[in-house]
Amino acid sequence: MIAITSNTISDERLQEIVAHIEKHGVKAHVSRGTDRTVIGIIGKADPKLAEQLRQMKGIENVIKISKSYKLASREFHPDDTVIEIKGVKIGGDELVVMGGPCAVESPEQIDEIARLVKASGAQVLRGGAFKPRTGPYSFQGIGVEGLVMMAEAGKKHGLLTITEVMTPEYVDVCAEYADILQVGTRNMQNFDLLRKLGTCGKPVLLKRGFSATYDEFLNAAEYILAGGNPNVMLCERGIRTFETYTRNTLDLAAIPVLKQLSHLPVISDPSHGTGRRELVVPMTKASVAAGADGLIIEMHTDPDNSMTGDGVQSLFPDQFANLLQDLEKLAPLCGKTFATPKQPINI
Amino acid sequence: MIAITSNTISDERLQEIVAHIEKHGVKAHVSRGTDRTVIGIIGKADPKLAEQLRQMKGIENVIKISKSYKLASREFHPDDTVIEIKGVKIGGDELVVMGGPCAVESPEQIDEIARLVKASGAQVLRGGAFKPRTGPYSFQGIGVEGLVMMAEAGKKHGLLTITEVMTPEYVDVCAEYADILQVGTRNMQNFDLLRKLGTCGKPVLLKRGFSATYDEFLNAAEYILAGGNPNVMLCERGIRTFETYTRNTLDLAAIPVLKQLSHLPVISDPSHGTGRRELVVPMTKASVAAGADGLIIEMHTDPDNSMTGDGVQSLFPDQFANLLQDLEKLAPLCGKTFATPKQPINI
Amino acid sequence: MIAITSNTISDERLQEIVAHIEKHGVKAHVSRGTDRTVIGIIGKADPKLAEQLRQMKGIENVIKISKSYKLASREFHPDDTVIEIKGVKIGGDELVVMGGPCAVESPEQIDEIARLVKASGAQVLRGGAFKPRTGPYSFQGIGVEGLVMMAEAGKKHGLLTITEVMTPEYVDVCAEYADILQVGTRNMQNFDLLRKLGTCGKPVLLKRGFSATYDEFLNAAEYILAGGNPNVMLCERGIRTFETYTRNTLDLAAIPVLKQLSHLPVISDPSHGTGRRELVVPMTKASVAAGADGLIIEMHTDPDNSMTGDGVQSLFPDQFANLLQDLEKLAPLCGKTFATPKQPINI
Amino acid sequence: MIAITSNTISDERLQEIVAHIEKHGVKAHVSRGTDRTVIGIIGKADPKLAEQLRQMKGIENVIKISKSYKLASREFHPDDTVIEIKGVKIGGDELVVMGGPCAVESPEQIDEIARLVKASGAQVLRGGAFKPRTGPYSFQGIGVEGLVMMAEAGKKHGLLTITEVMTPEYVDVCAEYADILQVGTRNMQNFDLLRKLGTCGKPVLLKRGFSATYDEFLNAAEYILAGGNPNVMLCERGIRTFETYTRNTLDLAAIPVLKQLSHLPVISDPSHGTGRRELVVPMTKASVAAGADGLIIEMHTDPDNSMTGDGVQSLFPDQFANLLQDLEKLAPLCGKTFATPKQPINI
Repeated sequence: MIAITSNTISDERLQEIVAHIEKHGVKAHVSRGTDRTVIGIIGKADPKLAEQLRQMKGIENVIKISKSYKLASREFHPDDTVIEIKGVKIGGDELVVMGGPCAVESPEQIDEIARLVKASGAQVLRGGAFKPRTGPYSFQGIGVEGLVMMAEAGKKHGLLTITEVMTPEYVDVCAEYADILQVGTRNMQNFDLLRKLGTCGKPVLLKRGFSATYDEFLNAAEYILAGGNPNVMLCERGIRTFETYTRNTLDLAAIPVLKQLSHLPVISDPSHGTGRRELVVPMTKASVAAGADGLIIEMHTDPDNSMTGDGVQSLFPDQFANLLQDLEKLAPLCGKTFATPKQPINI
Repeated sequence: MIAITSNTISDERLQEIVAHIEKHGVKAHVSRGTDRTVIGIIGKADPKLAEQLRQMKGIENVIKISKSYKLASREFHPDDTVIEIKGVKIGGDELVVMGGPCAVESPEQIDEIARLVKASGAQVLRGGAFKPRTGPYSFQGIGVEGLVMMAEAGKKHGLLTITEVMTPEYVDVCAEYADILQVGTRNMQNFDLLRKLGTCGKPVLLKRGFSATYDEFLNAAEYILAGGNPNVMLCERGIRTFETYTRNTLDLAAIPVLKQLSHLPVISDPSHGTGRRELVVPMTKASVAAGADGLIIEMHTDPDNSMTGDGVQSLFPDQFANLLQDLEKLAPLCGKTFATPKQPINI
Repeated sequence: MIAITSNTISDERLQEIVAHIEKHGVKAHVSRGTDRTVIGIIGKADPKLAEQLRQMKGIENVIKISKSYKLASREFHPDDTVIEIKGVKIGGDELVVMGGPCAVESPEQIDEIARLVKASGAQVLRGGAFKPRTGPYSFQGIGVEGLVMMAEAGKKHGLLTITEVMTPEYVDVCAEYADILQVGTRNMQNFDLLRKLGTCGKPVLLKRGFSATYDEFLNAAEYILAGGNPNVMLCERGIRTFETYTRNTLDLAAIPVLKQLSHLPVISDPSHGTGRRELVVPMTKASVAAGADGLIIEMHTDPDNSMTGDGVQSLFPDQFANLLQDLEKLAPLCGKTFATPKQPINI
Repeated sequence: MIAITSNTISDERLQEIVAHIEKHGVKAHVSRGTDRTVIGIIGKADPKLAEQLRQMKGIENVIKISKSYKLASREFHPDDTVIEIKGVKIGGDELVVMGGPCAVESPEQIDEIARLVKASGAQVLRGGAFKPRTGPYSFQGIGVEGLVMMAEAGKKHGLLTITEVMTPEYVDVCAEYADILQVGTRNMQNFDLLRKLGTCGKPVLLKRGFSATYDEFLNAAEYILAGGNPNVMLCERGIRTFETYTRNTLDLAAIPVLKQLSHLPVISDPSHGTGRRELVVPMTKASVAAGADGLIIEMHTDPDNSMTGDGVQSLFPDQFANLLQDLEKLAPLCGKTFATPKQPINI
C-alpha cells in the first residue's frame, strides 16, 4: 500500500501519519519526490488502515498494490480449482455446457427441454424457479414447485441442475433440489446472501454484477470462499455500457483476466451477455476461444408462448444442437475436450 | 406499446402476431411503412405480452411508450407526496438535511455528532449500524447495538434517525429503532428486501443503484409502493461512469427528472456522489439549486480515527455548520425554506 | 512517478530497470514490500520514460503522481485566469452568459435572437455556422455566410460572439469574424486543430469530449496553451453514460474539480448536457451553485421551423429572460455578480 | 419514423403536426392509444424532418425505425464487400493479419519487424508515422520520413502497409506511401477528415470511436462511402467502460453485429482493445471465432527501448509467430482460410 501526500505537507503532520501507520504493526517508508511525497507501507496491513489513511488530513491518495481478496487469488492457490459434481468436472479439461429455459414453466416443458439438452451433449440443465424482475408486475417465477420439476427432469435425463437463488431464506430449499446455486447479477453484492452460500454445501455460480469491476467481482467470491465453500464458479454475463443495441456488452477479456487473477473456473453467458438470439452462436464460440471453462446458454422449444421475455435470446433446439457440434471441433483447439452423442438426435 | 417488424415479414406471420396480441384483450393496429411495419397495441396490455412479443419470430423490436410503473408515477398521483415524520415534512416546502457519520462507532461518538448535527439546523441524524463492504475482511458495522446508540442520541437531541437495512431479516429490528430505513445502492434491486419494506410501516429512503436507469429506479420504488408503503424517498447518490477522479458521478439532472416523472420526494447524497470532501459543499448547493427536497451528508468529528474509509468524504463539523448557514440563504431562491439556530453554536 | 514490480522479480532485472531510469537523469528509490516492490522516480522525468517503463518486462504498473499537464495546472498558475474581451471579463467576478441558436439560419433569425439575448442581460451571442453531424445527410450549417451574419448581429446589439470551428483550415476565417472560437466535444482530441488554435490569437472555449476524463480534458487544453494561447475556457457539456433519458449526463462535479486542478475559467452547457428543454433551467441554476464562471445556453424563437434537431433543448425567449432574472439573485450567493437590464424587455 | 405525443395533446396541435409532416411529401398515420398517441411517418422522410419533429411542442419522442445510413447498410448491398489490394482480399474467405509496431522509429527497426511479420504469415505491415497523443509533450511520431521507411520495408518484404492519418492536410501524402489509410478512434467523427478520405483513392480502415455506438460508427463510414470511396473496413478496437484493469473493453459482439447491419469487412484490434500483452493472444482467437475478417496486432522487437508506451501491449516476435500458427488451425472452423509459411522461420 502506498499513501501519497503533497510536498506542502509539514514535517510534523508527516511524522503523525508515520506514527499512526506504525501503530498498526507495519513499517512506513518515506520517499520525498519533487512534487509529491510517497509513503510505502511495508508488511500486511489491516484493511482498516487503508480506510483511515484515505481520510487523514494531508493525504491525497492511497493506492493498494496488494489485492484485497486472498482465497480467490491465483497467488494463494496456484493450481486451477476443479469442481467435481456427480462425475462432471468444472474447471478442468472438459468444456461444460449448461442449457435450458429462462424459467421453468411446467413439468412437460422442462422435461422436453431436458431431453434436448442432454441429446445435444450438454451436462447441466439450467432453469429459473425464482426470477428477479425489474418491475413488480412481471412474472416472478413459479417458486419451489419449479425446483421440484427441474430436479425430476435432471434426474430422469442424467443432467446436473443449476438454478438461481435470490435471498438467504431460500438457500436451503434451493440447495436441497439443485446441484449448483446461481447468484444473479443484481445480487453479486447481496452480502448476506453470499455469506449464507458460504455454508450451503453446494457449488455456486456467481454472476458478475453488470457494473462490477474484476476486483469487486473477486471480492464477492471471497465472501463465499471465506464462509467455507471452496466451490465457486465465476460467470461473465455482460456489463452495462453506453451501447444499447445489445442488452449488455459481453466482456470476453474478463475470461483470461479472471483465469490469471484467480484459480476459480470461469463460465460465459452469451445469452444475457448479448440479449439477442442471433449473437449467441458467435459469442459462444468466441467465449471458448477466449478460454472459458464452460457456457450457460438459454434454449427454449416454444418462445412464442414462453412466460418471460428472455426468450428473445433463447436458441431454438436445433440451433443449440448445431452449436454444440461446432464446439466439439473448436474445444480441442482451445485446450478443452467436448463430446456430443454420436447417435442421431431427435429434435 | 409498439412492435416493429421488417417489411419482409409474410402476411401470414403478421396475422398470427395480430391474433396473438388480440387474445390478450387489446387491439392491434397495423401501419405498413416503406421499410418497416409498425403494430400499435392499444389498451392496457399485460406486461407479459411485451415480453412474449419481443421474442416472437419476425418482430425486430418492441418499444414501450407507457411506463411500467404506476404508483410511483406523477400521472397516477399528480400532487407531490409529502412524508410527515414526528412533525418533519419531507417533500414539502422545507428543505430537509440529514447529517452524521458513515458508521456508528460508540455512544460518545454518536452523541457528540448528534449534538453538532442538531446545533447546525439539520433535522435527521444518519449513521450506519450495518455496513455493506466490498470485501469480507473490512469493518462491517457494529450491528443492533449501533441502532440502540443512534436511537438514544436522536431522542436526546430531538433528531429523526435514518439507518441502512441490508437484508429482509433485519427490517423489523431496524424499523423498531430508526425513523427512516435506507436501502443502499447495491440493494436497489434486492427485490425481497423491497417487498419486505413494503409492509414495514416506516418511511424508506431508496438509493439509486449506481448503474440503474431512472426507469429501473422508479420500478424499484414501485415494489415498495405496491407492497402498501406510500412513504418512499428517492435518493440520487452518484452513478458509475468512466471518470475515476470522483468516486461516482453525481447525476444532478436526476433531481428534476425524478420530480417530473414521479411525485416522490428526491434527496441528494453529495458525499457518496463525489467521494471527496472538498466537493461536498459545491455539490450540496448545486443539489438544492437543481430542486432537491433534501440532502444526506456525512459529517465526522475525528476522521483520523474513524472506523471506515468513508471519512475521506465526511465534512468536519465547522464545514457542516457553515454549509447549512449558506443553505439558509440559498433555499428561498429555490422554492424551499430552511432555518439554522440563531444562537451561537459551540463546535 | 512510481513503478511497481512483483516481488518475484530478480535482483538483476531490478538493477537493469534502475539503471534504465537513472540514464534519464532522475533518481530511482527502491522499497521492497511484502508482495510488491515499489520504485519511486524522483525528479522531473521525461514523459517518454513513463511510457517505456510501462512496457518493460517485470513491471506491473506505472502510476503517475505528478500531472502530465503543466501550463493548465493550478500549481503552475495559482491565480484564476481572467480572460478579457472587449470589456467582458470571463473567469472573474462576473457571471457570463452566452445565448443563441444552435445554428445560424438567416440574417433575420440571428438578428432577432441577438436582440433578445442582449435584452435579457447576456454578454455573448452563440450560433453555429459549421455544424458537426453524426450522419452525412443532415444539415451541416450554412458556412462562412453564417459567420458574417452573426458578426453583424453581435456588433449591432453589443454582444461578443462565439462559434464552433471544426477543422484547422477554417480557424483563420472563424477567428476573423468571431470573438471566441469553440471546439466541439467530438474534436477535443483533434490535435492538429488544437495546435492551430494555439496560434490563432483569439480566446478558445474547449468543450470536454463526451467520454474524456478530467486529465485528458486538461491535456487537451495544454495543447492550446503550449502553442502560445493563454486564453482557454473549459466547458463541461455532459458525458456519455448508460442513462439514455437525458442525451448526456451533465457532470457538475467537473466544475469544482476543474477550478481546483486548473486556473482556467469553467463554463457549463446545460443545453447539450441534458438535451431536454425542461431540464435546462434547473441545471443552469445548479451549474451556478456549483461554481461555474459562465453558461452557454441555446435559445430559439421558432423551434417548429429550426434547421437542426437541437431545438428540442432550446429555451424559448421568455424562458431565457426569466432564467437570467433568477441568476441575478442567485449569482451573489455563489460569489458572482450578474445584472439584467432594468427596463421592460420586449419579447 | 414514429412520433409520440401525450394524449393530453389538443386535436388542433395534432392537426398542425400532421400538416407539417405532410408538407414534406410523406404520409402521417395517427393511432390514438390509451396513454399516448403514435404518429407513423410513411415514406422516405428528409432527415431534417426528424430533427424538427423532435423539438415541436407536444411531441414527447421521435423514434427512427429506418436506419440513417444507406450505403453502409446490408440492405443496400446484400453481398459482403471484398476489398482487393495488390492481390490481398479483405472481407472474403481469407483471414487477413496486419502486424507491426505502434510507431515507426528507424529504417532498421521497421525493416526487421517487416521481415518477421512476413515470415509469420501476415499480409499487412502496420506502423504509425503520425501519433495521436493525449498530451502535447509526448512523442508525436516521426512524420513523413516514417511513411517512406515503412513503404520501403513493405515493398522489400512483400507486405501491404497501413498507417494512421490524423488530419485532412496529410491525406494525400499518406495515400502516396501507404496502401491503407487508418482513421484512429479519436478521429472517428472528424468529419472533414472523413470527407477527404471519401476521395483519396485508397482503402480506409475506420476505427470505432471509443465511445461510439454502432449507429454512429456506421454513420461515420457513410461519410466516406458517400464521398465516393467504397473501400471501407470497420475496426472494433475497444470501448471505454468503468473497468480500468484493461485499457478498453473489446466489444466482440460488435463483429457479428456489424457484419449483420453492414456489408463492410470487420477487423479486430486486440492490442488497443485490451492494452495488455497477455490478453492479446486469447482475444485474437476470440475475435476470429466471433467472425472477424482480419486482425490488427502490435508486435515489437525491443519494447524496453520503444518510443511509445504502447509497447506494453505489443507481442514479442515469437508470440506473434506462434499466434499465427494457431490461427491457421482456428480459421477453417470459422469459415476462413489462413496459411503460415511452411519453412522454418528465423526469429
